[in-house]
Amino acid sequence: MTFSLTILGSSAALPTPYRFSTAQVLNVLERFFLIDCGEGTQIQFRRFKIKSSKINHIFISHLHGDHFLGIFGFISSLNLLDRKQALYIHGPFKLKNLIDQYISTFDRGLGYEIIFQPLHYDGIELIYEDDKVTVESIPLRHRIPTCGFIFKEKERLRNIKGEVIKELKVPIKCLQQIKEGEDYVDDSGKIFPNKNLTTDPPKPRSYAFISDTAKNPQIIEHIKDIDLLYHEATFADEGKKRAKQTGHSTARQAAEIAKLAKAKQLILGHFSNRYKSLEPLLIEAKEEFSNTDLAIDGKVFNIPLSKHN
Amino acid sequence: MTFSLTILGSSAALPTPYRFSTAQVLNVLERFFLIDCGEGTQIQFRRFKIKSSKINHIFISHLHGDHFLGIFGFISSLNLLDRKQALYIHGPFKLKNLIDQYISTFDRGLGYEIIFQPLHYDGIELIYEDDKVTVESIPLRHRIPTCGFIFKEKERLRNIKGEVIKELKVPIKCLQQIKEGEDYVDDSGKIFPNKNLTTDPPKPRSYAFISDTAKNPQIIEHIKDIDLLYHEATFADEGKKRAKQTGHSTARQAAEIAKLAKAKQLILGHFSNRYKSLEPLLIEAKEEFSNTDLAIDGKVFNIPLSKHN
Repeated sequence: MTFSLTILGSSAALPTPYRFSTAQVLNVLERFFLIDCGEGTQIQFRRFKIKSSKINHIFISHLHGDHFLGIFGFISSLNLLDRKQALYIHGPFKLKNLIDQYISTFDRGLGYEIIFQPLHYDGIELIYEDDKVTVESIPLRHRIPTCGFIFKEKERLRNIKGEVIKELKVPIKCLQQIKEGEDYVDDSGKIFPNKNLTTDPPKPRSYAFISDTAKNPQIIEHIKDIDLLYHEATFADEGKKRAKQTGHSTARQAAEIAKLAKAKQLILGHFSNRYKSLEPLLIEAKEEFSNTDLAIDGKVFNIPLSKHN
Repeated sequence: MTFSLTILGSSAALPTPYRFSTAQVLNVLERFFLIDCGEGTQIQFRRFKIKSSKINHIFISHLHGDHFLGIFGFISSLNLLDRKQALYIHGPFKLKNLIDQYISTFDRGLGYEIIFQPLHYDGIELIYEDDKVTVESIPLRHRIPTCGFIFKEKERLRNIKGEVIKELKVPIKCLQQIKEGEDYVDDSGKIFPNKNLTTDPPKPRSYAFISDTAKNPQIIEHIKDIDLLYHEATFADEGKKRAKQTGHSTARQAAEIAKLAKAKQLILGHFSNRYKSLEPLLIEAKEEFSNTDLAIDGKVFNIPLSKHN
């Protein structure tokens, strides 16, 4: 029942030995998603002992090098490791051309299919769905077309109260509908309300990746009550003017978004190299939103299951 | 009077946190050359505190990702650090297209000129020269067109014996020719042999970068008496068949080349990920050529000045 985020890199612009460029692995119920892929991401997989073969979907937010330059080495390495399964890449359409050009240099060809799905910037869009999980892209406010990504568990089926079902001798063929929330009507026409037959399932969990962006209140309605929010915080308050010029956010602005969206937890990331210590950013953000953490390479954030309110 | 090699990466194919992909910085008399540029190279510059701005020439041996994927991030970072000086890139011609495609994604353009000089594979070729240093490319035997690089100091001027010159009252205008090796003829026609007027300059120093390649005896004549030889040693003896299939060398084969070329010192590198310990490779090479070392990330090899024999 895992919903777990591993930070592989959290540096803006220039990677350092201690803070690699943006990349994250999100495990939602054993679906492993790679979010952004800065230079050196494949090294971080090895450092933090995550199997790169588990990744079937990569999401690239925008075409700044610190968010995608690791994708070529990642693709190569999967090939050297003999991958056969298709790999989906969701990213800006120009990225496809760069990838195709790179693959054209391979002397032994690519042993698996890459299925490229370009992002769009008109509004929020469903870009992945299976029986348990959805992923949406959401346009952000940056210098070039950029999307964030919102990952959500689907609503689960309700939990059957076993003894009640047994006592009422409910036929097996009715159980699916009851799990889906329907009342039970027996042969005599008597109605048994669903709330007597089932308990609430755990609340669906959700994660939003919001980077790179200037402060953008338009996203709030789409990330309302999000369990975990990652928001870029390139600058501290002193960098507010620079943030505006460059299409970035301050830590305080990230926290303001988290507060307005009623997020449960905020992670700050994409830190400018000018900050030797990240303490000022954390302090400033916590003044607005107390449950704030820093993205540090290798750090893992888990969202446990919880009941509906 | 520096002639110094710093290893930034020595891994074949897949970089690891402890062994990055191939890259080296060579300092010849304060000319800083970058040789190959695997993924993560810019991180290694920061890790080993080498200023990336000092690089004016990059040499890329061939178009396998583990030798060039770091070049995009390197170019970007120089741009972010406000570089104005031209950057020369010597590499396979297809690399130019990849670089151009990448630069076309920059929203703020490139603030400096990149001058791309394609390599050729017909034979040994002078690809760089200034008043003190030359660089030659030398075709190797790999699966795709590949060049090694040979860096040489030029012959220095001879050293004037100050007291002798003073005693003979040699005119200043004659000193340059004497430094260049000529005898001195005074007004009366008397000849003073150069060997009485000067001492030998230090021997010119040289370094050869030979990777990736199957064992290739054809290079020996071009690297005769080389001071420092870096030769790929992807495999140990047990991998000899695999080396042949993939266009690589064993450590023993690298050492055989060093021995036949009468190199002074051999560095092995480009190690396959299959080897947790590199001891077997070192032992096998030393059986053929005793002055062998391993390329380890961060290691520095200096060639001191020495007298002519």
